Amino acid sequence: MHAITIPEPGGPEALVWDEVPDPVPGEGEVLVEVAASAVNRADILQRQGFYDPPPGASPYPGLECSGRITAIGTGVAGWAVGDEVCALLSGGGYAEKAAVPAGQLLPVPRGVGLTQAAALPEVVCTVWSNVFMAAHLRPGETLLVHGGSSGIGTMAIQLAKAVGARVAVTAGTPEKLQECARLGADILVHYREQDFVDEVKKATDGAGADVVLDNMGAKYLDRNIRTLALNGRLAIIGMQGGIKGELNIAALLGKRAAISAASLRARPPEEKTAIVAAVREHVWPLIEAGQVRPVVDRELPMPDAAAAHRVVEESGHVGKVLLLTP
Amino acid sequence: MHAITIPEPGGPEALVWDEVPDPVPGEGEVLVEVAASAVNRADILQRQGFYDPPPGASPYPGLECSGRITAIGTGVAGWAVGDEVCALLSGGGYAEKAAVPAGQLLPVPRGVGLTQAAALPEVVCTVWSNVFMAAHLRPGETLLVHGGSSGIGTMAIQLAKAVGARVAVTAGTPEKLQECARLGADILVHYREQDFVDEVKKATDGAGADVVLDNMGAKYLDRNIRTLALNGRLAIIGMQGGIKGELNIAALLGKRAAISAASLRARPPEEKTAIVAAVREHVWPLIEAGQVRPVVDRELPMPDAAAAHRVVEESGHVGKVLLLTP
Repeated sequence: MHAITIPEPGGPEALVWDEVPDPVPGEGEVLVEVAASAVNRADILQRQGFYDPPPGASPYPGLECSGRITAIGTGVAGWAVGDEVCALLSGGGYAEKAAVPAGQLLPVPRGVGLTQAAALPEVVCTVWSNVFMAAHLRPGETLLVHGGSSGIGTMAIQLAKAVGARVAVTAGTPEKLQECARLGADILVHYREQDFVDEVKKATDGAGADVVLDNMGAKYLDRNIRTLALNGRLAIIGMQGGIKGELNIAALLGKRAAISAASLRARPPEEKTAIVAAVREHVWPLIEAGQVRPVVDRELPMPDAAAAHRVVEESGHVGKVLLLTP
Repeated sequence: MHAITIPEPGGPEALVWDEVPDPVPGEGEVLVEVAASAVNRADILQRQGFYDPPPGASPYPGLECSGRITAIGTGVAGWAVGDEVCALLSGGGYAEKAAVPAGQLLPVPRGVGLTQAAALPEVVCTVWSNVFMAAHLRPGETLLVHGGSSGIGTMAIQLAKAVGARVAVTAGTPEKLQECARLGADILVHYREQDFVDEVKKATDGAGADVVLDNMGAKYLDRNIRTLALNGRLAIIGMQGGIKGELNIAALLGKRAAISAASLRARPPEEKTAIVAAVREHVWPLIEAGQVRPVVDRELPMPDAAAAHRVVEESGHVGKVLLLTP
């Protein structure tokens, strides 16, 4: 088969579409003929040499895919050759075939196209595990999502609205904020011109956000804590703004607040399986009912993954950038 | 009645046993004739002028008491005059009488003396709400308790052991560590001579502590994060080592760890009621079965509260220091 390989870490041009051996599904795995994968920030870090795949994972980038099952390993129940699926991967999505642990498979939801389904696994599992399983966002509460127009952001807005929460977003342009509003965001903060602490407080009568979903890490740590409401929860999923920040423990304690931090990729298979099962139970019905949909910015041919990485690195997109196998 | 008043903030001598008006139980409250109260660090901060009572609370110190109900306000069910109780207070325990919201009352457990029961409410509610309700300590997990010989510490050790967890403690003298061991602590760290990160890692085959109960705040923040196991939870209940510390978000994220911070006193009555109800359901049976007991260092006459504060400030005690009404 062909896959995107990284002979030498570097810029987008480091991504090379090359012939490689087919993966072989092991015990508890299926083989998926990939229709599409999608770009995640972790892929860019991997391409740059900053994020090695976890032990045992495919060496090729790609944390999610959609496609058809073409073979079933031993010890797999509930799936059949020909099933249309999407999947959470530890790597290897940028390829014509992927071996996938059965616990990380999801059926393509009714009403979603086969390629579009590749936009779902990472963002749905990330948002569900962090905003709902860890931070317990509840109906009537307010969620602040940083980077509201990103893949994660567009899904977080929709899921929070679907459960009856209020949503504040930050984004860097008025156009991106308008996309967020179309998806349901109630409070729009242009972070280049407005202070998100002030804006969220103003819009919540001084109460603040019950949950903050953050991808900035150190740069936003103090402001995120200041934005939290009493009993607020900060869920950190990225460190695009640095890894070490000053924590005001008195502020955290005064609000009886909490901070959690997690990445999806590093979780062991049993935790991924539990998250995928929760997503299938709670989120899939919302997608099939049309309340939540994959947001796709554009589709590019997988051999041209370099172009897709450039789009994401320049933050020129809204939602997910897909890679389609030729 | 008499109560300990604080005419001017200052050292222990600022505590003055004086005649004051009797409290009047309001709607949903009972009047308790106090048998005993106990010293908490918050009382010392209040005496020093650093911790004003929350709005509506008694101006006198004392966050817990035991005694007999002598009058019942309107809208109170389930309690009768003459009942022996202990109670979580927002203040006013250093007094001959206290008005107590019914939701913050607990019966004196079978097998515990009336004065000894004053040693229970604060430590049991603090440990249960932080270690169990917030940080979800589970059987088989390891809890690290800083200040293992304190009132909080001696209760945390016993409750964690009672639910089948392993317990590590820090303390400042071999004698205090021996008291912790007698209560069930498995891993003893003399913090003046040993590094608790190293010792806990060594004793857990490198895994670390699943939950850390911390009263030091900034000073221990980084070391506490380094001590945490995968999926570990740090529960901060005090800031004796400072309020602002550098948080290594990468370390937190790499462990999928969480930090929570809370004080009991500032919680609104409905949260206190929920905690007291959980304690009555989960902890009272352990006390009545003899698995968990109040640890009392000494009993002093309430008018001599200054002497009691000196004991706690010099950390010369193990467990709780009680104040008995004359």
